Order: sequence, then C-alpha cells, then structure tokens
Amino acid sequence: MAAAPATATPIGVRAEDLEQVAFNADGLVPAVVQEEATGAVLMLAWMNREALVRTLETGRTWFWSRSRQEYWCKGETSGDRQWVRQAYYDCDGDTILLIVEQEGRGACHTGERTCFYRAFGPATPATAEGDAAAR
Amino acid sequence: MAAAPATATPIGVRAEDLEQVAFNADGLVPAVVQEEATGAVLMLAWMNREALVRTLETGRTWFWSRSRQEYWCKGETSGDRQWVRQAYYDCDGDTILLIVEQEGRGACHTGERTCFYRAFGPATPATAEGDAAAR
Repeated sequence: MAAAPATATPIGVRAEDLEQVAFNADGLVPAVVQEEATGAVLMLAWMNREALVRTLETGRTWFWSRSRQEYWCKGETSGDRQWVRQAYYDCDGDTILLIVEQEGRGACHTGERTCFYRAFGPATPATAEGDAAAR
Repeated sequence: MAAAPATATPIGVRAEDLEQVAFNADGLVPAVVQEEATGAVLMLAWMNREALVRTLETGRTWFWSRSRQEYWCKGETSGDRQWVRQAYYDCDGDTILLIVEQEGRGACHTGERTCFYRAFGPATPATAEGDAAAR
C-alpha cells in the first residue's frame, strides 16, 4: 500500500454528550459502524460507557464483548483497524453511529468487507435498479 | 411532489434465511435502516420474528415496540414510510440491515431526516476533510 497510514482524530468526551446516552439494563448501547468512503454499513457491536469513552478519546473503535466479557479494540490483533472520523447518537440516545476509515481487509472476521454480506431472499439490487429506472 | 408514489418490492421469506437470524433472550434483533439514495443511516429499531417476516413479505418496515409492546409499521401514522429495497443479516445473524427508500420528511419523529443528527464533541466533518486533504 502506497497510501500514508491512517492516523487517529480523537473526538473528545463531553459530559453533556455522555449524559444523553441511554445504556440498557446491561449497561450497553449498540454501535453501528459505517465506512466513510463508501457509506457501507460495516458492522454493529456493543459498547458500555467505558468503551464509548475510550472510542471518543482514542479515535479507534472500542467495544465490550458480551460473550468474552472483555473490552476489545477493533483490529488490534487483525490489523483491520477502524479510525473514527465522526460519531453520533440518536434521538433516543440508545444507539451510537460511528463513521470510520476502515483499514485492511474490512470489518468482518470472515474476511468480507462488511458483516452484512448475506441478503434475504433472492438478490434484490437488480429489482431496486429496475424500480429506480422506472420512476 | 411530482414524483410517482413509491411502491413495495416484497423480498420474500425463505426458511434458510430465517434460520440464520439469532434473536436475543427477549426474542428481538436490532435492525439498522439505511437510506438507499444517500447512504445515510436513518435509525435503528427492534424486530421480533413476526416483525421481520412482515417486513420481508410486505416490503415495508415493521418493528416491535419494546415500550408499547406492540407492532408498528414505520410511517403508518406519519406518512414517512420506508420501502425496503434490500435486506441483509450479518455474519453472526444477530443484526439486520435494511436498505430503504425513505418517503416524506424522514425517519426521525423529531422531523430530522435521520435519528443520528447529534454529533459527539465538536463538529468533526471539517477535521475529517482536513485529514483527507493532508493525505
């Protein structure tokens, strides 16, 4: 890769933002991760308060593994790191959206770029394009 | 609006797809809704199996309201309907992604187009552009 390595752009933690986040009964909130360059939704994982703070402070995506009961920083072992460029919370404060620069192969542990690589039903993009063309 | 009204493109329900979906202990799975035309992530809501089946069968977004304990079809009262064009499930089967045509004002009950209209920290797009320009 000739491209310069990605660097972190920490977003910073503001108390007034954190107060808006509604963690569930387990102290968790779902975080949707979207790729900045393509708009592709890459994955969804869960954060507790500490994972959210680490994410905002470091500019890397930190999550809480419900199965392993531990923090994990995306790409720390695989190298497929995510560099956070924008971070949002929704109207109810119970979902986070992170816009990232995805490094390496992608977000999915299977090697796919996005975790959402399986479509319901027959392939639909052709249908959607057909609709768009018909309008 | 001079544009022709949007119409449904049902995706269809396949048993082999449904079997891949891992509902949580409450029988729910989070569904991320993304706008087809802009790539914007609009909202996240929850589905039980019946809501997922209704969504795939009707081509409209159906969810399960945890607070009201009832089904709701997005836009049925507001007119801000969502027409499903593509539907995906992730590698673990525990998150759904719906690509929709958003009708009306948008997805958020506040009147915003997306529910993710509040950013953490200082505005970051300028920073991200600065980084991109510097690379």
